[in-house]
Amino acid sequence: MATAPPQPLSDHDLATVDRYWRAANYLAVGQIYLLANPLLTEPLSPDHIKPRLLGHWGTSPGLNLVYAHLNRVISARDLNAIHITGPGHGGPATVACCWLDGSYSEVYRDVPRDGAGMARLFRQFSFPGGVPSHVAPETPGSIHEGGELGYSLSHAYGAAFDNPDLLVAAIVGDGEAETGPLATGWHGNKFLDPVHDGAVLPILHLNGYKIANPTVLARMPQRELDDLLRGYGHDPLYVSGDEPRDVHQQFAAALDTALDRIAAHQQEARSRGSAAASRPRWPMIVLRTPKGWTGPKEVDGQPVENTWRSHQVPLSGLRENPEHLEQLAAWLRSYRPEELFDEHGRPRPEVLGHVPSGDRRLGSNPHANGGRLLRSLPLPDIRRYAVEVIKPGATLHEPTRVLGALLRDVLRATDERRDFRVFGPDETASNRLQDVYEASGKGWQEEILPVDEDLARDGRVLEMLSEHNCQGWLEGYLLTGRHGLFSSYEAFIHIVTSMANQHAKWLKVSRELPWRMPIASLNYLLTSHVWRQDHNGFSHQDPGFIDHMVNKDPHTIRVYLPPDTNSLLAVAQQTLDTRDRINIVAAGKQPSFDWLPVEDAVHHVHRGVSVWDWAGTDTGREPDVVLAAAGDVPTMEVMAAASLLRAFLPKLAVRVVNVVDLMRLLPPRDHPSGLPDSAYEAVFTTDKPVIFAYHGYPWLIHRMTYRRAGHDNLHVRGYKEEGTTTTPFDMVVRNDMDRYRLVMDVIDRVPGLALTAIAVRQRMNDKRTEHHAYIREHGEDLPEVRNWSWT
Amino acid sequence: MATAPPQPLSDHDLATVDRYWRAANYLAVGQIYLLANPLLTEPLSPDHIKPRLLGHWGTSPGLNLVYAHLNRVISARDLNAIHITGPGHGGPATVACCWLDGSYSEVYRDVPRDGAGMARLFRQFSFPGGVPSHVAPETPGSIHEGGELGYSLSHAYGAAFDNPDLLVAAIVGDGEAETGPLATGWHGNKFLDPVHDGAVLPILHLNGYKIANPTVLARMPQRELDDLLRGYGHDPLYVSGDEPRDVHQQFAAALDTALDRIAAHQQEARSRGSAAASRPRWPMIVLRTPKGWTGPKEVDGQPVENTWRSHQVPLSGLRENPEHLEQLAAWLRSYRPEELFDEHGRPRPEVLGHVPSGDRRLGSNPHANGGRLLRSLPLPDIRRYAVEVIKPGATLHEPTRVLGALLRDVLRATDERRDFRVFGPDETASNRLQDVYEASGKGWQEEILPVDEDLARDGRVLEMLSEHNCQGWLEGYLLTGRHGLFSSYEAFIHIVTSMANQHAKWLKVSRELPWRMPIASLNYLLTSHVWRQDHNGFSHQDPGFIDHMVNKDPHTIRVYLPPDTNSLLAVAQQTLDTRDRINIVAAGKQPSFDWLPVEDAVHHVHRGVSVWDWAGTDTGREPDVVLAAAGDVPTMEVMAAASLLRAFLPKLAVRVVNVVDLMRLLPPRDHPSGLPDSAYEAVFTTDKPVIFAYHGYPWLIHRMTYRRAGHDNLHVRGYKEEGTTTTPFDMVVRNDMDRYRLVMDVIDRVPGLALTAIAVRQRMNDKRTEHHAYIREHGEDLPEVRNWSWT
Repeated sequence: MATAPPQPLSDHDLATVDRYWRAANYLAVGQIYLLANPLLTEPLSPDHIKPRLLGHWGTSPGLNLVYAHLNRVISARDLNAIHITGPGHGGPATVACCWLDGSYSEVYRDVPRDGAGMARLFRQFSFPGGVPSHVAPETPGSIHEGGELGYSLSHAYGAAFDNPDLLVAAIVGDGEAETGPLATGWHGNKFLDPVHDGAVLPILHLNGYKIANPTVLARMPQRELDDLLRGYGHDPLYVSGDEPRDVHQQFAAALDTALDRIAAHQQEARSRGSAAASRPRWPMIVLRTPKGWTGPKEVDGQPVENTWRSHQVPLSGLRENPEHLEQLAAWLRSYRPEELFDEHGRPRPEVLGHVPSGDRRLGSNPHANGGRLLRSLPLPDIRRYAVEVIKPGATLHEPTRVLGALLRDVLRATDERRDFRVFGPDETASNRLQDVYEASGKGWQEEILPVDEDLARDGRVLEMLSEHNCQGWLEGYLLTGRHGLFSSYEAFIHIVTSMANQHAKWLKVSRELPWRMPIASLNYLLTSHVWRQDHNGFSHQDPGFIDHMVNKDPHTIRVYLPPDTNSLLAVAQQTLDTRDRINIVAAGKQPSFDWLPVEDAVHHVHRGVSVWDWAGTDTGREPDVVLAAAGDVPTMEVMAAASLLRAFLPKLAVRVVNVVDLMRLLPPRDHPSGLPDSAYEAVFTTDKPVIFAYHGYPWLIHRMTYRRAGHDNLHVRGYKEEGTTTTPFDMVVRNDMDRYRLVMDVIDRVPGLALTAIAVRQRMNDKRTEHHAYIREHGEDLPEVRNWSWT
Repeated sequence: MATAPPQPLSDHDLATVDRYWRAANYLAVGQIYLLANPLLTEPLSPDHIKPRLLGHWGTSPGLNLVYAHLNRVISARDLNAIHITGPGHGGPATVACCWLDGSYSEVYRDVPRDGAGMARLFRQFSFPGGVPSHVAPETPGSIHEGGELGYSLSHAYGAAFDNPDLLVAAIVGDGEAETGPLATGWHGNKFLDPVHDGAVLPILHLNGYKIANPTVLARMPQRELDDLLRGYGHDPLYVSGDEPRDVHQQFAAALDTALDRIAAHQQEARSRGSAAASRPRWPMIVLRTPKGWTGPKEVDGQPVENTWRSHQVPLSGLRENPEHLEQLAAWLRSYRPEELFDEHGRPRPEVLGHVPSGDRRLGSNPHANGGRLLRSLPLPDIRRYAVEVIKPGATLHEPTRVLGALLRDVLRATDERRDFRVFGPDETASNRLQDVYEASGKGWQEEILPVDEDLARDGRVLEMLSEHNCQGWLEGYLLTGRHGLFSSYEAFIHIVTSMANQHAKWLKVSRELPWRMPIASLNYLLTSHVWRQDHNGFSHQDPGFIDHMVNKDPHTIRVYLPPDTNSLLAVAQQTLDTRDRINIVAAGKQPSFDWLPVEDAVHHVHRGVSVWDWAGTDTGREPDVVLAAAGDVPTMEVMAAASLLRAFLPKLAVRVVNVVDLMRLLPPRDHPSGLPDSAYEAVFTTDKPVIFAYHGYPWLIHRMTYRRAGHDNLHVRGYKEEGTTTTPFDMVVRNDMDRYRLVMDVIDRVPGLALTAIAVRQRMNDKRTEHHAYIREHGEDLPEVRNWSWT
């Protein structure tokens, strides 16, 4: 350390970034505390203070510093850049910065960039009916909600994929860095193609403390931290200090170095081409500054700056405590607001010297309002992939395998545009979507060996054994205006339940913001589902993600359970190019019966719930019983039950119903897709027993239909947490959803059946007993079950 | 690399570990393939092959290698050790090893350690009614289900805490290592006290491939991998090769070195004492061997060994393909089974030369069947902490704060035993449990600065900003026979939904295994809940974890919603020392009204559902309406509504009901705690309107009660995903659960009310309008709401 530190900033530039930083800090403090008197034009009095002090100061000065410096380099280099705020509790910082750069007032015209606007800016923050305390959909320039920590890097990589000109500056909090998702988020660099993708610049902000504790990364020995970051594949640049001028110079130097290196890596890779490129050691910055920097050093004799005590609101009780009030006034004045704002409250030109123009501003970059860039997805005609169905229930196909061909052609159709990707945790082929590799390899920037198959530097299929990264990458990709699909083992989508929560919340809030343009829906393909875990058993059996998501905003959530291959294609057609939704599609990968020719499948999916006349025995008469199914395995069991009933109780009028769009079951007041009562009753009747075989937990169907007439006649079979490694039919028997049980259910519930019915019931019961004996002996299902077909 | 590699194994020891390894490999292959002819006493024919080939071979030889070598060092050093199998898909390996060491046959007497037992061992694997394909509760010596990847290290640290003599060998798969939870699991070493805790020895098994892809860690440049592991705080020892004798020598040397270093670190720390100790750089081993090692090198001309193709079943179609059958026979014979098993199928003594005795065996160590070690938790009398309640609804307390005092004394009472811990992601104090620090600091092995508070090397309160680690540590702690509690922000418990799934499955299966002794329940305290996110807003509002868990095995799940401080204490008393359950307690941290003296609270919690006679106006008569609440905020609104009704409609007979034990609502056939219909009807009536204010999503109450008589009269208010940063009362207004809305609901649903009721309804509606105006103006709730009290 004998050499003088670099001084890349001229005095003028230094003054400019420092003014922006001070202005943003002033505005952050103002938002937390002030209800009035924003420019301190009168002495601060208790009346000027908010009655409830809410917000997070601690991380704000660091966020403001980064923003101020990004302004400089964006302007100097004409960069196309967005930023992601991992420590997103620091909402006042980001709001302050994009109010300063003018973006805020352009989308919120009632908050102009002047004194009146500043007053409103302060008042609305964390105020009822105002703006939330975190970085949120309401924050211009953000694609990242800052409330739940851990996803900044996966969002950043998702934004950078297929955006070769984009720089994504990702600020990672040192609290956030302790989370699992963030800890593996670093490995995104193994999937970033320097030729076709943009750059991610991680800025690890070590401010030392969380809510109440030091952070792990800030307290590691420096050598270990350096090893860790190098181990993650980065060349770290360190910035450390608490003297602003010095930190400005250090940070500017680090930023210049990082951007030079990124440009050099990209230039080199792009001159060589994807195939010859190898993963660069991308730069990153470690910014070590005090938590709550420039805030009160001590309060009531306790150290505050550079401790966890500055996490939220360092000074409280201001309405009662004149000393604290005086401290706040001194704190605000320490930024010298008179140098920063003119007498009308407008930022002075000297503050805005580095602010980029128009869409180059971080608060206005269209990539952070991805709907502005979104193009319609080119979907081929599904009839090209449809399987021929001459007779229902006679042929078998693997639904996801056929879907794979369609997805392949979507990848092909977007080969130039590069705005569609498929994500999955090492399971794309296991989930039988392998045809996609004909159109695009699996993105991979590590060494590729001769034995490897389908790996490609420029691949748009991404597979990493981290559901968190798959989800975060896809979210980042969608939020920046592209399309995608996440295929997952059904049980393990629960790993990202909490991320899905946050994305649903984002979509709900965005829908209410006129300036946020709709983005492409998040499409889940849940496969390798509960009923076919022959290899893996109980740990892989959990259909509850649907239950969970059904509680979210109904305008966002759709759930599809296609009964066969053509229905899955029709669902894909109906969902893949939608907007602002979360589409959950649960479909099997195992060979399963074809029921519907493609045109019928399209109509079925369009209606969502259909009576399958050809399968029932109620033609031209009132049904005695309704047999309903939702899901591929339930459909097969219901069809088998229907054929048993046709054979053994031919006089019984059985109506067969299939539900492919689950939300149709909800009343229209609870969901926009809900069937009107009249339509529901026309299908399910109001007074006949309904035996309903459902893909997941049976209680969900009750929860959705309890207000429907005839609900008391509804009897639902489904998965009731009885699982193990066993045969497909044994799984349905264990959960009482097998064909024999369904026939028994019918007999038990239809009143006035003849004596023959008792014999049939006994026969069904015997079949179940026979199953148990046979499977113990042979380890296989009964031949009549294995060889069953509808016709 | 000029020096010869170390050769710590004598020829005799080398032969012994190699024999155990070969025997285990043979048994693993046999489990996957053979239905009969286990000892190959006759030529292998298609009849001997299972009809369905299921299981995972790829990782098995590596797991067997580690087990064989652990046997040696456990015997040589008289170690107290357990192992955790991160790549737990390799169930056949672990089953093979503990059958060889005799543990398996001791708990499964129908699977003796002889030829008949071997036949059964093979047949049952992944066979209907048999044992699962993964390491699972059924596997002796395991505390770790291997189906869902990511938790081996957090389980390992949980097992090691407060077990100073225990060594936990944690095998981490390189697929698993890509997950988020595992990526931050490494940081467990920052929380491991070398004085009071045992040791974790991570063994990173780089076998190169996942299901279908290379792994990130295996393909990193060696230098980067080394940096990463050093960055995680370890000194890695590398073992690499595919020649068994060489790998045995390398691995034995690495294991000896690692164990010597662990012993030295522990000795040094223990001689200095906790306070003076610092975090050692713990050793770890990187084991780089081929996936599917010793299996078929090629199948049908495709390379298999050392590729992803050996992940599951390398040879298939054996019943039809004689060439594959011949390959299998050669593969099995390559282990020279005649050297390993005698003519009765018993392992030869030369195979078992290193097997430790009795409880020292990995398959029999009592720490892996923690119920064997579990002691009853010393719970103090809750009356010592109870708050005085002279009049209901007159005083305020912070419920979690009072609970903190009780937890403090549980920590004190276990100060010597060290078998109780409190876990939380940096939120123990934020959740107002800070009194616990009087009994124990927060465990922390990094540098401690003068400004820090409550950090301690030997602390039993663990806080890291990783819900995954908190959950995994607690699971590991419970599974090895101790007690604990996890306090979390309610919304962010969703981060570990999937882990909670797996723990619930573990408990369900364990309950059915007579040899698995009951373990302490997993206790969740969900606080900072949906209704009081004044600081954080929408992202922090999600009460859906309860909905999710209610789908699980009813014998496992309990949900408590204590209405006040004393009720929370009573819930703690009723749950903390239970067994084999997941207890979910949702309780606020904000000052809230006291309703029940402690004795009443105990009775209330014992009953689960109570009529609060003193709050209603139905004494001595049939109620006109039932006002029910579950949760602290709903209780306050229901009580306020009841007092409004008493004032404005004094003739109306209002019954006030409180639900603290949510599962009571379920019918007894669906849950062991379910109220009999008669008891349910005695409280809720069968024909009166019930207005129910619920803590979470209202549909859950319908899902639980749809079979109850009178369900059609039930009207539930709760959280319907309307959230933001706002005041407490505005939150309930936004979700239509406020007192005024509840009174309106009553008026709307009670038939035949007099004309006065219409005026009252209008008045309530006006109050809601007034609220909206007031809050926009003042940012605070109406004074009459802020100042409201029951009496």
